[in-house]
Amino acid sequence: MKTEIIAVGTELLLGQIANTNARFLSEKLAEKGINVYWHTVVGDNPARLAETFSIALTRADLIIFSGGLGPTMDDLTKETVAEVLNLALEKDEAWTEELERIFARLERVMTDNNYKQALIPRGARLLINDHGTAPGIWLEHGGKIVVLLPGPPRELMPMFTAQVLPLLPEKDGVILSRVLKITGLGESAMEERIADLVANQTNPTIAPLAKDVEVHLRLTAKAATRGQAQKLLDATEAKLLTRLGETVFARDEESMAGAVAGLLFKRNQTIAVAESCTGGLLAHMLTNVSGSSAYFMQGQVVYSNRSKTELLGVQPELIEKHGAVSEEVARKMAENLRRRSSCDFALAITGVAGPTGGTAEKPVGLVFIAIAKAEGISCRKFNFIGNRETIKERAVMAALNMLRLYLLDING
Amino acid sequence: MKTEIIAVGTELLLGQIANTNARFLSEKLAEKGINVYWHTVVGDNPARLAETFSIALTRADLIIFSGGLGPTMDDLTKETVAEVLNLALEKDEAWTEELERIFARLERVMTDNNYKQALIPRGARLLINDHGTAPGIWLEHGGKIVVLLPGPPRELMPMFTAQVLPLLPEKDGVILSRVLKITGLGESAMEERIADLVANQTNPTIAPLAKDVEVHLRLTAKAATRGQAQKLLDATEAKLLTRLGETVFARDEESMAGAVAGLLFKRNQTIAVAESCTGGLLAHMLTNVSGSSAYFMQGQVVYSNRSKTELLGVQPELIEKHGAVSEEVARKMAENLRRRSSCDFALAITGVAGPTGGTAEKPVGLVFIAIAKAEGISCRKFNFIGNRETIKERAVMAALNMLRLYLLDING
Repeated sequence: MKTEIIAVGTELLLGQIANTNARFLSEKLAEKGINVYWHTVVGDNPARLAETFSIALTRADLIIFSGGLGPTMDDLTKETVAEVLNLALEKDEAWTEELERIFARLERVMTDNNYKQALIPRGARLLINDHGTAPGIWLEHGGKIVVLLPGPPRELMPMFTAQVLPLLPEKDGVILSRVLKITGLGESAMEERIADLVANQTNPTIAPLAKDVEVHLRLTAKAATRGQAQKLLDATEAKLLTRLGETVFARDEESMAGAVAGLLFKRNQTIAVAESCTGGLLAHMLTNVSGSSAYFMQGQVVYSNRSKTELLGVQPELIEKHGAVSEEVARKMAENLRRRSSCDFALAITGVAGPTGGTAEKPVGLVFIAIAKAEGISCRKFNFIGNRETIKERAVMAALNMLRLYLLDING
Repeated sequence: MKTEIIAVGTELLLGQIANTNARFLSEKLAEKGINVYWHTVVGDNPARLAETFSIALTRADLIIFSGGLGPTMDDLTKETVAEVLNLALEKDEAWTEELERIFARLERVMTDNNYKQALIPRGARLLINDHGTAPGIWLEHGGKIVVLLPGPPRELMPMFTAQVLPLLPEKDGVILSRVLKITGLGESAMEERIADLVANQTNPTIAPLAKDVEVHLRLTAKAATRGQAQKLLDATEAKLLTRLGETVFARDEESMAGAVAGLLFKRNQTIAVAESCTGGLLAHMLTNVSGSSAYFMQGQVVYSNRSKTELLGVQPELIEKHGAVSEEVARKMAENLRRRSSCDFALAITGVAGPTGGTAEKPVGLVFIAIAKAEGISCRKFNFIGNRETIKERAVMAALNMLRLYLLDING
């Protein structure tokens, strides 16, 4: 069943809001195994709305509208749909009474505009709105299903879930997705390793998506049942893990910090962090994980050189000699922090987040990350690209990944 | 100039992400007075992509694509556009060299897929990507302008603002928006103060939008020129400020941390922070502001009781007697931190972020925030609602707002 979602509203075309209704509807339809092929947004303009609907009728089997059902003059979705399909609008007695009850309760006078909301195209089925005055509409016509939903998400979401989803045929089985999250491997290097799978696998399909600081592989499986779809996903995930190994750090909603937290928790070990250029983001990520007080003991945001000395005991001479952004200072920060905090691990980050402060020798994006552990200290040098926030994020990701690999006994 | 924005990506059709690029582009185009009439989303499918582009060519003068420019096999926007317009793809020597430089710097091997990113349609102009490897493309063909932008917002946004907007003609008058950001006042309390303005003003319109930790008021003005639109916005902003006063903390892209940073910078004063439940988020927000090393000296994430004692000298007896989440401990954290760091201000936060750790006496969301300054220490108690991340955000917002009001000499 090919589906098109048409959102109606000039506020979308002016960029005042994002089309979150289309996101919600698409997600729910995918779970039901229904393919969404197009999202379209069009303004409160009857001619363009009619044209958009006509194009949809040529290519889609299920057309879902959101918006344009309100009482005002620029709300024209219902009128336009009825006109294109050549259907008369008829008064729905039950909804008229419901509206009169609502207005009586609010002690407001009902205008002609409000009565307009009780009109529905001949042959259509009314969908009750528990959160507003605009009912939805379900219409089957010429082999197509046309659904009209109100624009406010608080009205659209429960109406769709409770009244529309149950009416839709469960045709093509179930579509289930799983995301594998990858770091430490560029999008194209990753693709080299798995190109044959991406090209040849059709169920599940494998779609790479480069995020700012990680790459996601989305597997999407179709099957008759949820269980069968899970099995297909499991089999493909196993194949991918053989190729990608430890570069896969998490699945679905899990974060890098969550993965590290899980490992520390399992080993009953603790961590302290010292941050210069990342300015608290590493501590923030680690403490976003619920229950983090079990393993996260303390963080030091040593932004000034003075704080590096006073809080972490990094000798001014060392900073003088090598610079605050140097392997020597990163190592000393980690070493001293581990000793002072008595934690199992200390992670230390020093670098240049930019946009100012870079030099030819130490450019924006240069970051040293050290990890102190019982076996000693290791340190890596990175050259990140991006703006200030991206460099902070990339550095935190790299630091957490260094610890993750160490905890997995892969290197470090 | 009729505009269509086409986003390419199956992840949008599966509802995995919302089309925020279209929102951003529409907003920027509206500011320039360019009418966006359609948003379309289509998947990584060459036939449907070609069909969508062909429809756009019949109705729009300016067509902007986002997404599908990556190095992988399912990135097909450039290839499809070239095919529909019957243009050859040619290697751009300068971008090839740039890619080789980027890969050398990252110490990664460049694959054939990466070289594909340096191909551009004959006659097109390359748009430089400062944040990734996929260049954008500007193409004029048969009286139409076709622009191809990379999908990741961090790449698309600066490319569009710096390189595409200046090339676009300024035509149909200007629509300009301004956002006033408000904190410390609920949405309905705010509405009480300004209901008559919201109801009666049509240019600019005033639209309230409740965010998680702040409320936004969006003013949208239409005028013949940018200057006239600015004047309309200024006049309405002045009216609103009379009603809302110091609850308005920032405008447009400015953040609360940015507002506080500006005040500290102007007064040439410094700050240190101590965080328990917010876990580094306060330091992270303050250090997101470029140039923050001028005023931000250090942060302490004192998650464990031991770290509160060892790093900030909070006596174990005080914690024992009042609990780590108490006014007494918050005050002591701020007091000791200010003395030890020699900063002008010390902000300290202690609370229960949840979801676990709450008790009847000290429930999830209870937070104490203290600020130490030359005149002494003040402390406020808050009861925030929300999940762990929201409580962290609300606490940081409240802490920064306390400091902002003090710096504005309003209270504290």
